[in-house]
Amino acid sequence: MAETEHRVVVVGGGFGGLQLVHDLKGASAKITLIDRRNHHLFQPLLYQVATTALATSEIAWPIRHLYRERKDVATLLDEVIGVDRQAKTVLLKSGAPVAYDTLVLATGATHAYFGHDEWADAAPGLKTLEDATTIRRRMLLAFERAELADNTVEREKLLTFAIIGAGPTGVEMAGMIAELAKQVLPEEFRSIDTRQTKVMLIEAGPRVLATFTQELSAYAQTALEKLGVDVRLGHAVTAITSDGVTIGDTFVPCGTVIWAAGVKASPAAQWVGAGADRAGRAIVSPDLSIEGDPNVFVIGDTASLKQADGSPVPGIAPAAKQQGGYVAKVIRARLEGQSVPGPFKYRHQGSLATIGRRAAVIDFGRFKLKGGLAWWIWGLAHIYFLIGTRSRLAVAWSWLWIYLSGQHSARLITQRETIRDKT
Amino acid sequence: MAETEHRVVVVGGGFGGLQLVHDLKGASAKITLIDRRNHHLFQPLLYQVATTALATSEIAWPIRHLYRERKDVATLLDEVIGVDRQAKTVLLKSGAPVAYDTLVLATGATHAYFGHDEWADAAPGLKTLEDATTIRRRMLLAFERAELADNTVEREKLLTFAIIGAGPTGVEMAGMIAELAKQVLPEEFRSIDTRQTKVMLIEAGPRVLATFTQELSAYAQTALEKLGVDVRLGHAVTAITSDGVTIGDTFVPCGTVIWAAGVKASPAAQWVGAGADRAGRAIVSPDLSIEGDPNVFVIGDTASLKQADGSPVPGIAPAAKQQGGYVAKVIRARLEGQSVPGPFKYRHQGSLATIGRRAAVIDFGRFKLKGGLAWWIWGLAHIYFLIGTRSRLAVAWSWLWIYLSGQHSARLITQRETIRDKT
Repeated sequence: MAETEHRVVVVGGGFGGLQLVHDLKGASAKITLIDRRNHHLFQPLLYQVATTALATSEIAWPIRHLYRERKDVATLLDEVIGVDRQAKTVLLKSGAPVAYDTLVLATGATHAYFGHDEWADAAPGLKTLEDATTIRRRMLLAFERAELADNTVEREKLLTFAIIGAGPTGVEMAGMIAELAKQVLPEEFRSIDTRQTKVMLIEAGPRVLATFTQELSAYAQTALEKLGVDVRLGHAVTAITSDGVTIGDTFVPCGTVIWAAGVKASPAAQWVGAGADRAGRAIVSPDLSIEGDPNVFVIGDTASLKQADGSPVPGIAPAAKQQGGYVAKVIRARLEGQSVPGPFKYRHQGSLATIGRRAAVIDFGRFKLKGGLAWWIWGLAHIYFLIGTRSRLAVAWSWLWIYLSGQHSARLITQRETIRDKT
Repeated sequence: MAETEHRVVVVGGGFGGLQLVHDLKGASAKITLIDRRNHHLFQPLLYQVATTALATSEIAWPIRHLYRERKDVATLLDEVIGVDRQAKTVLLKSGAPVAYDTLVLATGATHAYFGHDEWADAAPGLKTLEDATTIRRRMLLAFERAELADNTVEREKLLTFAIIGAGPTGVEMAGMIAELAKQVLPEEFRSIDTRQTKVMLIEAGPRVLATFTQELSAYAQTALEKLGVDVRLGHAVTAITSDGVTIGDTFVPCGTVIWAAGVKASPAAQWVGAGADRAGRAIVSPDLSIEGDPNVFVIGDTASLKQADGSPVPGIAPAAKQQGGYVAKVIRARLEGQSVPGPFKYRHQGSLATIGRRAAVIDFGRFKLKGGLAWWIWGLAHIYFLIGTRSRLAVAWSWLWIYLSGQHSARLITQRETIRDKT
């Protein structure tokens, strides 16, 4: 390729970055995709790894493998530590700086503990494969330790799970843990009755799944309660230790705490010196570039953009994909000397969440659905969005097996040798 | 069950322990199976996890799940720290001591570095799922670092892999890494040509697969060399650092070193005060009990027993299973007041090893086979020995996919965030 070809550097191989690279196919650009992980992760199903339903490799794909046939795309496994906007280079932790003509930052978000970073050890969040295997290990170890415990107080504590935050991730985790405890595990233990497990879903707001309609929220709450989940709304958590959580003024001993409440943006705004909102997201112009630099774009969970009605674009996969696609159009138009598209507009396609393996809620605007049929639609939609035939077949097969046999296949405790360590 | 029921405590959920528990079904015994891992691991296929062909959960099963319907079996996840033969109890790291009437130690073996424990960090062995994901991570990171490297010397070092020990594990690892480098990865990298990768298989003895016949050894070596593996026989490794290996007097820079050379027994002999051979294995009587205590048995890789011809029983899965089955018969006979069987006799059923995904060698005594058909028999035999329909179908499906598409599905770098750290 010619040396003078336009260099597009994309940081982050999440939904936004991948959509952008996909849509730049055939453009006369030389693309470099940088990520600190070697894999794209299908985050909407990460909770299924944490709860032993899916294997890690079923929802993660090596990024460079996805672009093996795209000779215009080079993949670098490295960590970005900054951007030099004067020199137009991206600074890496290991490799030499990478020069860009156009830069797209799609670096996502991580957990936020509302100023209580000391809660992180006791209450892991769910953003990476390691987070998922950590939660899986703690959850399975809690049952194992309860089986070994020599007194009732300890046993009750170990069989108490607290999930903080009742958005889709919290609701889905709570449903799966309750099902594991009440339907999958009971016949395997001899000293404890895992059906006595207490799963608490704690939410500071007034309802679960706050982005759904009142009716679907209420249905989801009822479905959770049918599975035995103790839903506590309007309660803020004020302290978390390795011994339990404090809800308002009440301390509840817990063996396992999972954080599903808050996120904060990656430091992309700092790298490029852009203004940021309270969650650290870079404030972007209507074309998703940063103020004063039309060659630097920020998309996905690390960008802050208000819609025409004043509401923010939500931090979900479809929004990131739409932004990736939009920026690809802008770059193409510039390269081809065409007129660039108008401002980015987010089209909300709908919201889905599952409660256990028989129920789900779906809100596609005018089309709303709940219950068993919604669960099937949820499953098919997620299989459709997976990458590649192999993953689709593998996940479909794993779910079918769970559906028919009631047995989960990825119940592995890994990374720690003994049962004694708390983490 | 009656309090007076005979208590059998089994330590170790490997091939020997599981066979024993299986064969005690219906005996009037109360069985406690203790393992420090929550899963049984199908070790013969562990190298396939290390080389990205299989997912971790495809070759590991939660032990307590296997016995969910056996109400006579209780499973404890805990680490044994000793045995009190006077009190007839097993001492645990976390839980209370467990009393036994009959004790069976089946705790296996781990890597041995021939007195060079300082090599362990630079040259991981392959015994646990974590070992496999460590090797997988290092191997994949070596290619990623080579892609980022800015000079030829560094790149060549990173693309050099040394496998030490040419038994089945070493041969199988070398074949898979060579195939990955030469057939799976080439089109995915832009700066390096992964076909330039150098895979060295280093063996102090005079041939690969020393337990097979001369002819099959020679075939395996030729098959490895066809895949581009540099087989170095009659060379002892004298030093290993994070920069490379010293073979005899020659230092070879290497990015990745894998240990497949020696094993040592678990400390079972020490726990029970039995005599041990040089590898630390407990010396057992012809009925697999220890001298002077007919109620304590040691089986599998941690037992040392000579056959009638003076050769030792080999440390392989079929031997452990036969010993587990034998001890179950002895325990049953005692419980039922029948005459106990004669001394344990090992029946060698054959040896199998694969070289890449098209060739294998099989030695069933009079029946010997090499090449493509042997590979199919090897594959079917291993699928047959997996536990449960789900695993059999999943592994068969993973292999079929690799066979048809040439693509590996579990190419994940996990547990470390960045590319910079050496380990």
